[in-house]
Amino acid sequence: MNYCDRLHAAMDAAGGPIVVGIDPVLERLPADLQPANPQSGDQCAAALAAFGRGIIEAVRGIAPAVKINIAFFEVFQAAGVAAFYDLVESAHENGLLVIADIKRGDIGSTASLYARGHFGGAELNTHGAARIPDAVTLAGYLGRSAVQPFVDMAAETGRGVYILVRPSDPEADLVHEFGQEGRRFYQHMADLVSAWGGAHRGTGWSPVGAVVAAKDAASTAALRAAMPHTPWLVPGYGAQGGTADACRACFTADGRGAVVNASRSVIYAFADQPGDWQASVRAAAERFSQDIRGVLGQQAGR
Amino acid sequence: MNYCDRLHAAMDAAGGPIVVGIDPVLERLPADLQPANPQSGDQCAAALAAFGRGIIEAVRGIAPAVKINIAFFEVFQAAGVAAFYDLVESAHENGLLVIADIKRGDIGSTASLYARGHFGGAELNTHGAARIPDAVTLAGYLGRSAVQPFVDMAAETGRGVYILVRPSDPEADLVHEFGQEGRRFYQHMADLVSAWGGAHRGTGWSPVGAVVAAKDAASTAALRAAMPHTPWLVPGYGAQGGTADACRACFTADGRGAVVNASRSVIYAFADQPGDWQASVRAAAERFSQDIRGVLGQQAGR
Repeated sequence: MNYCDRLHAAMDAAGGPIVVGIDPVLERLPADLQPANPQSGDQCAAALAAFGRGIIEAVRGIAPAVKINIAFFEVFQAAGVAAFYDLVESAHENGLLVIADIKRGDIGSTASLYARGHFGGAELNTHGAARIPDAVTLAGYLGRSAVQPFVDMAAETGRGVYILVRPSDPEADLVHEFGQEGRRFYQHMADLVSAWGGAHRGTGWSPVGAVVAAKDAASTAALRAAMPHTPWLVPGYGAQGGTADACRACFTADGRGAVVNASRSVIYAFADQPGDWQASVRAAAERFSQDIRGVLGQQAGR
Repeated sequence: MNYCDRLHAAMDAAGGPIVVGIDPVLERLPADLQPANPQSGDQCAAALAAFGRGIIEAVRGIAPAVKINIAFFEVFQAAGVAAFYDLVESAHENGLLVIADIKRGDIGSTASLYARGHFGGAELNTHGAARIPDAVTLAGYLGRSAVQPFVDMAAETGRGVYILVRPSDPEADLVHEFGQEGRRFYQHMADLVSAWGGAHRGTGWSPVGAVVAAKDAASTAALRAAMPHTPWLVPGYGAQGGTADACRACFTADGRGAVVNASRSVIYAFADQPGDWQASVRAAAERFSQDIRGVLGQQAGR
């Protein structure tokens, strides 16, 4: 089954086109999850994983998917990477899809190794299927060969990739606005990403998606038109300042083809609230989902 | 001490401006290093590390530095990442500098986590200083904030970064040749990379380097002029088809400011040769060094 069809089915079951991003830093974890010895990489990594499992339990049934950012785990090198894949497995056990936010990108001969590491090739049995994410984020700046090994595996196994097209950080504009009016670098990347999915698309959504931040409605609509079959992962909502209104143009007219991610505004929602931290996270995820469904004209619990 | 000054000193001691890239795949390892159980991620990762240690011993005294590509280790997830850092430590024990080829690139809030993981921040004691590389490769396509945390740490600790400017793979041209004649995307990236190092440069070489493949001499010379204080890491020699002649324009007139990397043409030099595999690798590294020194007009063992 095609990745985007799986994601749409999970969105319908969970009620909203949202993703909760798990970006854990020790300083912000609930007190009772803090490691006894903060000099122990193993204990620190275990604390991140315990927090991540708490988030997964809290947003289950509200978010169809979690996005787990490997950078926050690589801080603790091998112990962190082990915790990252433990969390992929936990999310699957809880019925959630997993987007591994890895932003990898290297030339072809290296890309195939990254693909084997994250999607599993000959090493699939070594990794364990439950520890393979459903989608990954990639950087496509080294061209088609940098993403092809991931794309081929994704198409074969019902997985997906999201390639950076328009990042949320304004600092990235210095690179992505390069070029002429009407022919900016991010528009060039959009055309490439749309083309790279072509061979695997069939008649539906492409397994090759895009990371597209919601900026002004006109440029978002132009990108949506340039990538009509490309599923989007939309960053920047919440702590990064993005609004639900700005996200509207990311979706097709019938509210398909995109998921909006929020990380810090959901996972740290307990910070200034008394009581059960997971209840605060769950409530924040509910508000997030209602906010997005609101602009799509969708009812809660559709 | 500035990273590039350290590298120049190591080049003088070892005799040549070369780097040997450690890109190990199980299929190509010597028979006696193959894992007993290829389904064991731990055994596979240990085999990669054992091969890497053999390469380090073979090229010690010839190459001032090794470039270790983390993709080849991530294949085995946490076990592979542990082996990767074991190898960083082995290289340091053997007096070699280490360039960690990680090609990371994400927005600022995430970049700081990647920087802590690979250069060590508060976690330095957890990692162990010998397991911190001397330089890393980065993708700068998400703008200054994506590299700043690495750059700040590098400048403070005598380390360096190499940001992708002109990749070796022709497939990357579709992205990097975007724009107008005389104002291509890779030229824009070159200007950004040169500027990003400015604050930390002082009067010498910048801690912010560039990955620049040697293509035609004219365009290489133009890039050298656009980045006069930027140390280069030059990929593409050997198995990727690059020649020593093409590398000449990467260096300053006095043969400084660049190191040329070769991976497969050196580390697998034993494949069609009888006898001691490490001796074959050592001989290939010697030939590589002589080839590059030849076009620079340098004598062996200067």
